[in-house]
Amino acid sequence: MRLSRFFMPTMKETPADAQIASHRLMLRAGMVRQSSAGIYSWLPLGLRVLKNITRIVEEEQDAIGCQQVLMPTIQPAELWRQSGRYDAYGPEMLRITDRHDRDMLYGPTNEEQITQIFADAVRSYRDLPKMLYHIQWKFRDEVRPRFGVMRGREFLMKDAYSFDLDYDGARKSYQKHFVSYLKTYARMGLKAIPMAADTGPIGGDMSHEFLILADTGESEIACHKDFLDNNWLDGVDFDGDLSGVMDTFTGKYAATDDKRDPAQEAALGDDLITARGIEVGHIFYFGKKYSEPMGAKVTGPDGQEIVCEMGSYGIGVSRLVGAIIEAFHDDAGIIWPEAVAPFRVGLINLRAGDAACDQACQEMYEQLMGAGQDVLYDDRDERAGGKFADMDLIGLPWQLIAGPRGLEKGMVELKNRATGERVEISRESALARLTQG
Amino acid sequence: MRLSRFFMPTMKETPADAQIASHRLMLRAGMVRQSSAGIYSWLPLGLRVLKNITRIVEEEQDAIGCQQVLMPTIQPAELWRQSGRYDAYGPEMLRITDRHDRDMLYGPTNEEQITQIFADAVRSYRDLPKMLYHIQWKFRDEVRPRFGVMRGREFLMKDAYSFDLDYDGARKSYQKHFVSYLKTYARMGLKAIPMAADTGPIGGDMSHEFLILADTGESEIACHKDFLDNNWLDGVDFDGDLSGVMDTFTGKYAATDDKRDPAQEAALGDDLITARGIEVGHIFYFGKKYSEPMGAKVTGPDGQEIVCEMGSYGIGVSRLVGAIIEAFHDDAGIIWPEAVAPFRVGLINLRAGDAACDQACQEMYEQLMGAGQDVLYDDRDERAGGKFADMDLIGLPWQLIAGPRGLEKGMVELKNRATGERVEISRESALARLTQG
Repeated sequence: MRLSRFFMPTMKETPADAQIASHRLMLRAGMVRQSSAGIYSWLPLGLRVLKNITRIVEEEQDAIGCQQVLMPTIQPAELWRQSGRYDAYGPEMLRITDRHDRDMLYGPTNEEQITQIFADAVRSYRDLPKMLYHIQWKFRDEVRPRFGVMRGREFLMKDAYSFDLDYDGARKSYQKHFVSYLKTYARMGLKAIPMAADTGPIGGDMSHEFLILADTGESEIACHKDFLDNNWLDGVDFDGDLSGVMDTFTGKYAATDDKRDPAQEAALGDDLITARGIEVGHIFYFGKKYSEPMGAKVTGPDGQEIVCEMGSYGIGVSRLVGAIIEAFHDDAGIIWPEAVAPFRVGLINLRAGDAACDQACQEMYEQLMGAGQDVLYDDRDERAGGKFADMDLIGLPWQLIAGPRGLEKGMVELKNRATGERVEISRESALARLTQG
Repeated sequence: MRLSRFFMPTMKETPADAQIASHRLMLRAGMVRQSSAGIYSWLPLGLRVLKNITRIVEEEQDAIGCQQVLMPTIQPAELWRQSGRYDAYGPEMLRITDRHDRDMLYGPTNEEQITQIFADAVRSYRDLPKMLYHIQWKFRDEVRPRFGVMRGREFLMKDAYSFDLDYDGARKSYQKHFVSYLKTYARMGLKAIPMAADTGPIGGDMSHEFLILADTGESEIACHKDFLDNNWLDGVDFDGDLSGVMDTFTGKYAATDDKRDPAQEAALGDDLITARGIEVGHIFYFGKKYSEPMGAKVTGPDGQEIVCEMGSYGIGVSRLVGAIIEAFHDDAGIIWPEAVAPFRVGLINLRAGDAACDQACQEMYEQLMGAGQDVLYDDRDERAGGKFADMDLIGLPWQLIAGPRGLEKGMVELKNRATGERVEISRESALARLTQG
């Protein structure tokens, strides 16, 4: 993509009302624009990141046999009356009356809707287990929306639901998601720490929040340092027994600020780390809470009715865009992990309008594109300083910098945004480095 | 995907309230389920088609330099007050009040939102022309929603918007979309006929509806038979002058029922065809209707302010799923064009549980998947008749049928769903045919 044509309205000034780094940087980089409080439009740069995250989430959900559906944003109130949540849910639910005076709502979550779909469709124990997910916009009418896409009112969430015959089955579905989530976040370049969460009236040990570490994170956490090592994830067999992997994790100390235990922490000694974190996922087992009132039951092998055991599994997709920026940025701007970067390479033409420089850049642009690289080519007629600043701001992993003096000798500069390392190398070497992974 | 695990709740009975073929078939094939009147959940089979259509639309929009953004579903009323449409828009607009008593609405379209984004971001004539599109759920509170996804309340639409300096530029953007739409529909296997539409107060000749032909279409049309030939589309240069291509089309007779002209039709003789059609797209030029009140202007080369010329370009993405079925079905079910089919191949194991049959099918399944084919493998322990009926119902382009008797001789049957042709050939030949395009 040529930057001269790309719709990327960057801002030099820091927006006054943006309190946290990701909000400021997303506005400054032209990734989003506010429509109204807590509601954003995604511009091309931001949407590319959102789509990359979405794709990773889809691939990892598919990999554990979770099947994608798509439920509507607007739900009938009667569904929520069946579960008893219509009145229980507070003012965060956006309640709507349609032209025929029917009570509707903008779904803040989808337990009721998915349970109804399942209950209408599935009859036999042979159809279980079943896991379904969707990625759809949700609405929670926060009283004080802030922090940009980190706590918006309209937000994109992946929510998955599992249906099993019994507790053992539900536990397996839960474990699949637990391990899959660690892999999902790792693919985005993130260290995610699972933290035991309150299970409410259901009890047991099957609710976890997933927090990623970021210096500017919203809450303080403490955990065993082994959590920072993702290597064990390679080659996990999701059809096999995941209890061992689960136990490895749940057996290690990890606690949010309100649950820290000085005794355990003292015992850990050098193995303890404290850090700040941001919640990016939450998984729950909730048994028959929805299947019972909404009739999600199947006929068992003996002809008896079995009420299904359910769980739900959420990932904040739009929130992750902000969370990743909180985890990876510096004073100059964003530093994207490669897997989610809007483009992998930023090609900077230092003398746009100079025939030789234009031609060399055009050639490199086409070579990189031809090799399947996502390239943003800064072909604008602007000063070098502004180009460097913009490229640092938007945080592409690699910057390929070409100017007339270097090109005369066949040389370019290659800059790694994360390390800041800048090397002068030949055009051929630069292309080889960028296209060989 | 193994059908034994796939969430595809087919129905044998014809749903009583479904009046048209696509609605009946989408319910029977387990593609969608109704949530409330005019609002649907997409199940895995239906979502796969929706995503295929979405992908084609995205690729063709990208190809003409239209850039993807994503605006929210919920918009502030004040935006629509600025354009004057908040009061003008009737009860089809879903009006919402949030917890702070602010007037909001579920966007039925996005002219106001995109114009605001543009006006805030773009300052100079050098940034034009600009074309932006998004694919997002819209809501129109139809008084009597019916015909399934063909006239739903919550529906997925692609809407694009162009911003130009003058009428000539706007005309070029319009032409790009005009030609691009013909290509987009052709890629889905559809014959789309552009029909001049009323331009309202703006006048001129720049509004067209695109109708696809379907025997069960909602309206009658008449047109020159040349419209059925899509071959001329290959190799169109979208950066070149498209006036010639446009003229070819707009110069030929095409009229919806209310605008037919007996004299012109008589003159056409054998070149006239009459058929039924379904609207699947609509493009408009509307000049300064929104840019003027909403301040979408740039500074020209001479320092003077220029109010932008705009157009908008819609494709009914979820509607297309129904429209394609209306165009391609028979008494047994759906007949998907390959480009949008949820899977390309349906592999039918006629004797699931028979070790040799299972093994041969498993091998073919893996070979096809390994060759990049989308395969739905019917591995269920069901009667052959039911399997044939289900496979015809869901309409995959190819059926690969394997039973114990044929397999003993190394033979399988390959059925083309569209032609009904069924040939007995060797396993190797079948795989070769399916994997060589």
